[in-house]
Order: sequence, then structure tokens, then C-alpha cells
Amino acid sequence: MTTDAQTTQPRSIIAGDDGGTPDVAAATTAAQEAFATYRATTPTERGAFLDAVADAIEADRDAIAAAAVAESHLPEARIAGEVGRTTGQLRMFAAVVRQGDHLGVRIDPAMPERTPLPRADIRQRQVPLGPVAVFGASNFPLAFSTAGGDTASALAAGCPVVVKGHPAHPVTGYLVARAVSRAVADAGLPAGVFSFLLAGDSGTSEIDLGQSLVQDPRITAVGFTGSRGAGLALARSAAEREVPIPVYAEMSSINPVVILPGALTSDPAALAEAYVGSLTLGSGQFCTNPGLLFLPTGEGGDAFLRAAAEAVAASTGTRMLTSGIADAYAEGTARQQSAADVEVLATGSPGDGDDAPAPQLAAAAGTDSPVVTDEVFGAAGVVVRYSSTDDLLRHLAGMEGQLTATLHLDEDAEADLDAARALLPALESRVGRILVGGWPTGVEVGHAMVHGGPYPATSDSRSTSVGSLAIERFQRPVAYQDLPSALLPEAIRDDNPWGLTRRVDGELER
Amino acid sequence: MTTDAQTTQPRSIIAGDDGGTPDVAAATTAAQEAFATYRATTPTERGAFLDAVADAIEADRDAIAAAAVAESHLPEARIAGEVGRTTGQLRMFAAVVRQGDHLGVRIDPAMPERTPLPRADIRQRQVPLGPVAVFGASNFPLAFSTAGGDTASALAAGCPVVVKGHPAHPVTGYLVARAVSRAVADAGLPAGVFSFLLAGDSGTSEIDLGQSLVQDPRITAVGFTGSRGAGLALARSAAEREVPIPVYAEMSSINPVVILPGALTSDPAALAEAYVGSLTLGSGQFCTNPGLLFLPTGEGGDAFLRAAAEAVAASTGTRMLTSGIADAYAEGTARQQSAADVEVLATGSPGDGDDAPAPQLAAAAGTDSPVVTDEVFGAAGVVVRYSSTDDLLRHLAGMEGQLTATLHLDEDAEADLDAARALLPALESRVGRILVGGWPTGVEVGHAMVHGGPYPATSDSRSTSVGSLAIERFQRPVAYQDLPSALLPEAIRDDNPWGLTRRVDGELER
Repeated sequence: MTTDAQTTQPRSIIAGDDGGTPDVAAATTAAQEAFATYRATTPTERGAFLDAVADAIEADRDAIAAAAVAESHLPEARIAGEVGRTTGQLRMFAAVVRQGDHLGVRIDPAMPERTPLPRADIRQRQVPLGPVAVFGASNFPLAFSTAGGDTASALAAGCPVVVKGHPAHPVTGYLVARAVSRAVADAGLPAGVFSFLLAGDSGTSEIDLGQSLVQDPRITAVGFTGSRGAGLALARSAAEREVPIPVYAEMSSINPVVILPGALTSDPAALAEAYVGSLTLGSGQFCTNPGLLFLPTGEGGDAFLRAAAEAVAASTGTRMLTSGIADAYAEGTARQQSAADVEVLATGSPGDGDDAPAPQLAAAAGTDSPVVTDEVFGAAGVVVRYSSTDDLLRHLAGMEGQLTATLHLDEDAEADLDAARALLPALESRVGRILVGGWPTGVEVGHAMVHGGPYPATSDSRSTSVGSLAIERFQRPVAYQDLPSALLPEAIRDDNPWGLTRRVDGELER
Repeated sequence: MTTDAQTTQPRSIIAGDDGGTPDVAAATTAAQEAFATYRATTPTERGAFLDAVADAIEADRDAIAAAAVAESHLPEARIAGEVGRTTGQLRMFAAVVRQGDHLGVRIDPAMPERTPLPRADIRQRQVPLGPVAVFGASNFPLAFSTAGGDTASALAAGCPVVVKGHPAHPVTGYLVARAVSRAVADAGLPAGVFSFLLAGDSGTSEIDLGQSLVQDPRITAVGFTGSRGAGLALARSAAEREVPIPVYAEMSSINPVVILPGALTSDPAALAEAYVGSLTLGSGQFCTNPGLLFLPTGEGGDAFLRAAAEAVAASTGTRMLTSGIADAYAEGTARQQSAADVEVLATGSPGDGDDAPAPQLAAAAGTDSPVVTDEVFGAAGVVVRYSSTDDLLRHLAGMEGQLTATLHLDEDAEADLDAARALLPALESRVGRILVGGWPTGVEVGHAMVHGGPYPATSDSRSTSVGSLAIERFQRPVAYQDLPSALLPEAIRDDNPWGLTRRVDGELER
């Protein structure tokens, strides 16, 4: 089957076969069969494959970017950056795999003379879980979708991947999937290492396809980025399986920002404009959008609020990802408008079309109401005034888990530092990333990044979906006791053929 | 309240208060309040505290050991060893905490000159989850109970612990809890760092107490060792909370042993006797008891089986931990006796009393029946004959997750090595520890040990309940972006006051 990808919605591909139908069992069976071969690839082979996936996406960059711009309504420059982020992410995981620290090798050598009992030779490494189902996000049609962070980290761990293509960008997903499948074939790997399924073709609904995938006994873990409703449904479903599996769902967050008084002494208006810049960036369609801001009472805060309201009033909406998302935004902002304890301070202008709603800034008296603390996905900000650090601590104590929290402060003001010291333990217990200065809407792909956080920001706070630590989500430890050298896997052999860093008797050795 | 611990069942203690009643909310509130102080302890302070817990248990060693022997019916030598294992485990975690690698420090330094966008300074460390509920095991009244591996690793991570005392050894649990609470007080820590609850006093049932603990919103994770039924009920309950929490339940396993033909060429009878030794050790009451053995058809296997049957016939039962466990063993062995596809080969003699049932050895034609693959906790072994490696692979393919698998082979026999190479990938996907030679019933406490495995051996295969890696179960990562040095936690400060190994730009540095 050939497809004019720019104009026609493609049929799903399964395991590299362009003519397939969206058959979950076929894809997961292929993934399971490919697992034996794929998990046995060496660091060099797997690293080369991940680099080749990046190369394949780059080779199709123009077509992919054009499809992504058309389907997501995101600007060309943003999509160009996202292509680079996606391939950079794949190359980072290639480097991680080659280095091999993720294998977590531990060796406790035998102690034949120990009394009263000798100690056996015990070695540990991390092994991949098995086939992983990936549910991409609408708001990052490349970096968090078909070959995004979940796919890259699962492939890096040695797990075959079955992607449920996102209905908001089926052509983009299809083109990326075709590139990945080409890299799979070129590497001589079994096609089942990567599969891509779309709902719709044979009457399968989004929900049915998603549930079939999560319920499939061959699937061993799930990566998801999206709404709380969908994420919780998948997590519940996975917990109710005969054999429950881990679900890493990155769901919702209002990313509180705390402005401490010292941050307002020099130029509150400039700070407010920067805030509105982050709030309205990409129609506010970021998991890390600063939806809730705590502002001190008093003149500095008043000045900030005036400037923020002016900036929002002067802003114009841009097209959202889908009409469904625009509708949800309209509902969310309408809820704020009609809530007794919320006052709308400013509304921007809508952009062209039905799906480019106006940004909105509101003020609320407190954080008790779900109207204030429920995420409105888009450029809708709520400001809550506070009068003391204790006030802030009370607000934070009642708050759900979040991806990020941001503090703005004056580093030279002892009062700000004291307040920050009092807030930090509370923030650490509630969020995955704490920023001082800046805005949460940029998520660096690196080794120290955490894009995660306590429930319900994610379904599993023990991990991150961005950054190299994400590989650990798809692994588990296995110990090997007294294996003869002829049977030891390379990673834990005495001659250390892969040159791995190893923990020997508890101490790192190189 | 004073208690003659040797003769009277004590009332529960809460947060070091001997006069308390078993009030879950009081214990979890105390734990939550203690968390802020306890999580902030330095590696030196926390290490000293863990050593002091070990010292306190040693100081009360005689009373604790006497109670444990009386309550568990385990021999004095075994209990003496278990006291040492328990204190050794606490001291290992003290050393782990002082070394600090579990903090997983990662630093990606700022790149202010990077184009198109500068990179922020991002640092990561692991933080403790919060109060942990621990459900001890009956079969290790010390090492897997009140101050056992779950408690030691949670305390090491910086989490306060609330123990549900096991009804099979309430006095032992109470005495250990008293020792731990003394160490808490001596260290000047809040009493809520450690609490101990027993069902029964105020009419609370075991199940109610357990469920209340798991449902309590202040509890952030659960460590459990015990039956599949109880473990699954707790895991389900935790998944259905408003805020789900991780449950690390170590449940059941039949620990398959595969005898490859080469292992039978020299002395099959000696091998069989060693097998029966492991099978009947401690009345077979080990999570790692070798409940299922695969034996090749042919003369060597026949000789092994004759010798194993003789050894079982010559064996005598010893008192089991509780009459309930003895009853369950009787039911399990009766199920095997009456199953059409199982043949009992040998039965030992029962020991003194109702609760010292006879060991049993049976043969089964295959592994399709749950009678063969369901764990019978105790000294009941089932042998399945096989005629080829493909046979073995078919058996393993249908098998549930297990804690261990053991291969016996001749290292100089190429046929054995080939068979082992074919089996290893299947075993790695199904178990947490693979042994070559020896028996699974010893679980070394070290850095490379994995006492875990795929569901339903445990509820979470990504971890271990024995060994230093167990600390990671009770942590989550937090990233810090652009924090001024005055606000950075010690673990991630530039001057590295704790002398930690850190991952800088992805590479380990010291």
C-alpha cells in the first residue's frame, strides 16, 4: 500500500508492514517474538540502532515536520525544534546504552573461606521487562509521541515497543513509524521490535484499542502522556490484569509558581510579562504550564498583577491542537468565570477560527476549590494572593502532586531565603522538579532532569519520563549465583568485555 | 504499663509509648510528623541510628531469641543466626547510608553560552517517599519481621516505619519494637520514626488493622512478606486508594530446580540427598523452598528419584510456625495425594504434636495442573520428568513468576552448557535469581542479591526485598533547577560536603 502521507490518513502499520490492519494481538505477538533477539543486542548494536532511528527521522524530516505543523497547528519553528529534540533524545539514549551504567552491574565475589558459611559468588544486572505499549501525547507530536521519550527509553532498555498512534496526528505518527521501521529493517532486527497501531480503520475505537493493548498479556509495561482521565483508566486497567503491569502515566499538573516578596522589588512588570509569556506559550499546551501563581499581598504584588492582566489582555489566542482540546479549554475557563470564588482579571483576544480561544487570567481567594486546582489545559492562569509563609505552607499542604514548582526570589534577601528554606521540604514532597527563577515550560532532556512527580501528576512518582533516568522504568534486576564463566552474560563476566562500571562488594569500581 | 514479655502477650506500642492502644491514625500521624525531622538527618546521623538499632537488638538478644524460639518453634541455632542476620542487615544499611550512593546524585551544569537556548543548572537526588507500613513474615520472625529487611531499608531511605506486628510472634515483635524505640529515643529522634501495632487488643482484626494501615492517607508505601492471598489483597487495596501507593509484596514461589543430565553422572544419590536437605530445611518454610524439580528421564534420573524418595521417607517432620500453616500444608499435600495426575512417591514421619506434619515427595506428569504449580508452603516437593531441552522450555513457558530457579549441571559437559544457554533467557524472564549448583534456600544479604521476581512471586518485579538495592524501593527522584547555592541540599552542593559519588553530565565522578 502506498500513501500520500500529506493528504490521506494512512492505515496502521504493524511491525513494519505497510499493509497491516490495526491488530493488537499481531503487533504484541511480533513484539514478544522479537524480544529474545532484541534484548540480546550488545551495547554497540543497540546504540547504533538508536542512532539509526534518529538518522531515519532526520532523513524524512521535511515530510514529518510538514505533517506535524499541519496536524498540530504548532508553528514551524517549534516543530523544527521538536524534531531536533526527538533525534537528540534518541542519540542521548544511544550514548547511555553504549556507556552501560543503566545495567547496574553489582558483583559480590565468593568468599569460600567465610565462617560459619561460605559466601557464593553473586552478580546482578538489570534486564529489560519485555514488550512496552506507548501512548503518545497530542501536545508534543514528535518528542512525546511515536518515537518520543517513552519509545526511546524503552528501546534503549531492550524492550520492543508497540505504539498506539495519537488520533490528533495520525499522519505524523505514521511517517515517524515508517522511519523507525526502516531503521529496524536496516539493522537486521525482527520487525516486531517496533509496531504502530491506529484506531479507526476496522471500527476500533480509541478506547478499545488502548484497553486491548494494556490488557494484552504480552505487554509488560505502559508509557503514557495525556489526560488524567485516560491515564487513570489505563492504570486501573493494568492493575486489574491477571498479571498487573507497571504504568508510567504522566497526566496533569498546574505547576505552582511562588513569587516571594524580594522578586518584586526591582521590576514587577517585567516579571509579570515573563510569566504571561510562559502561560501563553504554545497556547498554554504544556504539561508544565504555570496554571497557579502565588503572589504576595502589597504593592509589589499589585503592580505584578496589573502588568500580568495587561499582558493577557493584549495577547491573542493561537490554534489549539484539536477542537476537543479547545472545547475542554472553553469549558474550563467558563467554570472559572462562573465560580463564586474566582474573579476573571483579563481576557485576551481569540485567534482565527473556533479553536484559538482567548487566554485568560483570573484571581482566586484560596486553593480549596477544585475550580482553582483542577488543571485547565491551555493558557488559563489563576493567581492567589498570600500574606505570609505560613499561608503558603497551608496552600501547599492541601495541594495534589505536581510536575514542577517554581520560586521567584531575591537571592540577596534573607527573608526570601528563609521563606524558601521553609517551603522546600513541602515542595520536595509534592513535585518532581523545583525551579528557582525561570519558568517551568522548558523541560531539558538530560541526565539530571525529572519530568515526573507524585500522584496524580504521574501514576508512579519513582521515575521520570524525560531524561536518561527514564530507561530504568523498563528494567528489573536479576541475580546470578555461582554461574560458571561459560554461562555468565557479558555484562557480568570477570573480563568485563563491555568495560562497564561495576559495584563490587558495594563500592563502585572502574 | 509493664509486661512480662516472656509470658504475657503485650499490648501494642505506638511510637515508643508502652501504654498505647493499636490506633492506626495515631501511629501514622506520629510517623508523618516525624518525617520532616527524620528525612533531614545527615548520612552520619542516620547511619549511627541504624547501628544503634542493631546495638539495641543485640542488648536484648537473649530475651528476643528466647521469645522467637518459643513462638516460632524454630531451633535455637537458627534463631541465633537470624539475630545476627537482622543486626548485620541493619549495619549494612548503616554503611550504605553513610556511603550515600543511594542518593543517586546527578548534576548537569549550566551552559549559559549554549545556542539556541542556554542550559539551566539541573541537579537530581533521591528523596524518601514518606511513612512506610511494614507487614512482617511469620517464617523469619526477626530478619523479615519487625526490624527486618523492609524496616531497615525504609529507615535507611529516610522513611518512618509503622509495623503491623505478626500474630505468630507478638512477643518477639514487641521486644524488638521496644529495642528499636529505645534507639529512636536515644538518638533524640521523634518517637514517630518507628511504631508497632498489634491486632486484637481493642477487637481489631488482623485484616482490619492491615487494611486500615494500607488505606491511611499518610502511608506512602508498603513492604510485605507473606501469603499470596494477603499480599494481593493489600496490593489491590493500595491501588484503589484515592492516591495509590506502591506495594512491595513478596508472596509465593515454587522455585524450580532443573537437573541437567550431566549433573547425574557422578553421584545422583548424593545430589538427591542434598535436594531433600533443602526441601525439608526448617520444615520447608522458606520462600525459596525448592517445590518443583525437573529431572531427566533415564537411569541417572531414576537413581536420583529413588534416593530422594528414600531420604524423604527417612525424614521426620518438625513443628511448623503456626497451626494454621500446618493445616494449610496438610490441605496442600492432601490435594496432591488425591490429584489424578500426581503420584506420591514418599512420605516421611510426622514429628511430635499436631503441627509437625510429614514431609512429602510426589511425581507429576506435567506442569499444567495448579496442583503441581501452586505453592504448598512446607516440605512438599514435586518432581517432573523431562526428555529434552524443548520439554523444559515448554514447562517454563507456562510457568508463573518465581523468586529463584536453580540449574544443576556438569560444567565440563558441552550438552549441559548448551541446554543451560537455551534455558537462561527463559529463566531470566521468569525469576529474580538464577543459581547454578547449590540450593535456593539460603538468601545472602549483600549488594548483588535479588530476592524478588516477576508477579506473582512479588507484586513489583522492579526491586528486591533483600540486599542493599532494597533501599531504592522507598525513594523517588527530585530535580532542582537553578537553585542558588544557599538553598541547595547538602547532597547536591558544589562543595559536596558528604563526599558523594555524583553523575556529572552523565558520567560518574568521584
